[in-house]
Amino acid sequence: MRIAIFLYDGMTALDAIGPYDVLRQLPGAEVVFVGNTAGVKRTEEQPLGLVADRGLGEVPAADVLVVPGGFGQERVMREARTLEWLRTIHTTTQWTTSVCTGSLILAAAGLLRGLRATTHWAFLEQLREFGAEPVAERVVEQGKIITAAGVSAGIDMALRLVARVGGDDLARGIQLGIEYDPAPPFDAGSPRKAPAHVVQLVRQAIELKRAQAQHAASGV
Amino acid sequence: MRIAIFLYDGMTALDAIGPYDVLRQLPGAEVVFVGNTAGVKRTEEQPLGLVADRGLGEVPAADVLVVPGGFGQERVMREARTLEWLRTIHTTTQWTTSVCTGSLILAAAGLLRGLRATTHWAFLEQLREFGAEPVAERVVEQGKIITAAGVSAGIDMALRLVARVGGDDLARGIQLGIEYDPAPPFDAGSPRKAPAHVVQLVRQAIELKRAQAQHAASGV
Repeated sequence: MRIAIFLYDGMTALDAIGPYDVLRQLPGAEVVFVGNTAGVKRTEEQPLGLVADRGLGEVPAADVLVVPGGFGQERVMREARTLEWLRTIHTTTQWTTSVCTGSLILAAAGLLRGLRATTHWAFLEQLREFGAEPVAERVVEQGKIITAAGVSAGIDMALRLVARVGGDDLARGIQLGIEYDPAPPFDAGSPRKAPAHVVQLVRQAIELKRAQAQHAASGV
Repeated sequence: MRIAIFLYDGMTALDAIGPYDVLRQLPGAEVVFVGNTAGVKRTEEQPLGLVADRGLGEVPAADVLVVPGGFGQERVMREARTLEWLRTIHTTTQWTTSVCTGSLILAAAGLLRGLRATTHWAFLEQLREFGAEPVAERVVEQGKIITAAGVSAGIDMALRLVARVGGDDLARGIQLGIEYDPAPPFDAGSPRKAPAHVVQLVRQAIELKRAQAQHAASGV
């Protein structure tokens, strides 16, 4: 089972690494990290470099595709060559998945038209621009496409995918292996649960970053 | 606030990346990834390279230190130069933290002697070899040392640390930003919750990997 994880400058590392550390434990899994070109990709705030061992042309097919999010997605959504690669590799996959705003990249590639999909809570409405139907759920399955909500939701998505592919006990075993028995100190992980003033502050911070990312991506 | 995250060959990526994507959002955070030497470090199964931008000598001090786990820890526990660096940087930190078997590295450096500490559930007893008192809790604070349980527990640990450093609302905001509203498909994330046959299989798989890692690290 070949698992291709797409990396790009400005991604959020956890979007990619949550699914990675779950899916790599599938029996026979062969994980490959792919960039628009091979080489080091830097995360949003620049301090972390992750290595894309392969460029797009070297990975024409995969059983599972994972597309992470992050503000760099604004630029990726404008890269014709990457969108074309996504459309092509999607025809070869058993499962095409995204985490956070990675679904906006899939949407920009035209893969979510007419489908229910999710993304980070602050970006849901943007899915409509590409003909998708936004759903405020943690993981949304539509045929072979699975979209996950923001950042940490990729772990839940990947465990669900493992259960589909390898059965419930394998998923339980991997969950136990990564000791995923979550105990956050607060119950503030969704806009329905966090205090209103916290939601407002986070939304404002995200809007600012998004505007900056759009500005940078549009080359203005 | 300078945050140093230690990277090494054979680490588990999520151990480092969970805390990274939480702690980097602390106001004024400056994250630096440190290896025994600067350069690319590869995760357990080799498919992912993460870049350590700095070597040990370039990072003599930090406000927060994060030491991830992974089977490569067996080798790190025998690296005198790394253990010496850990003892030295620990004298400069406000917080010294570990995720998963990263605590065994701290223990090997002599930093956990006489202290309560945790690690991945399958490695708890090994803490005793270094004079620490194993505790089966998700996050254990002892003065300025915080140890977290296996892999995904680093996210919970980091949110607790953010609350300590920046207050509860900042931690809630970061939790909301990474949409950490966990919804695993199963309740099998700890040996107390997973079915007994799953615990047994995972324990066996881990024992095998640990024996291989010890064998490789001892150079036999």
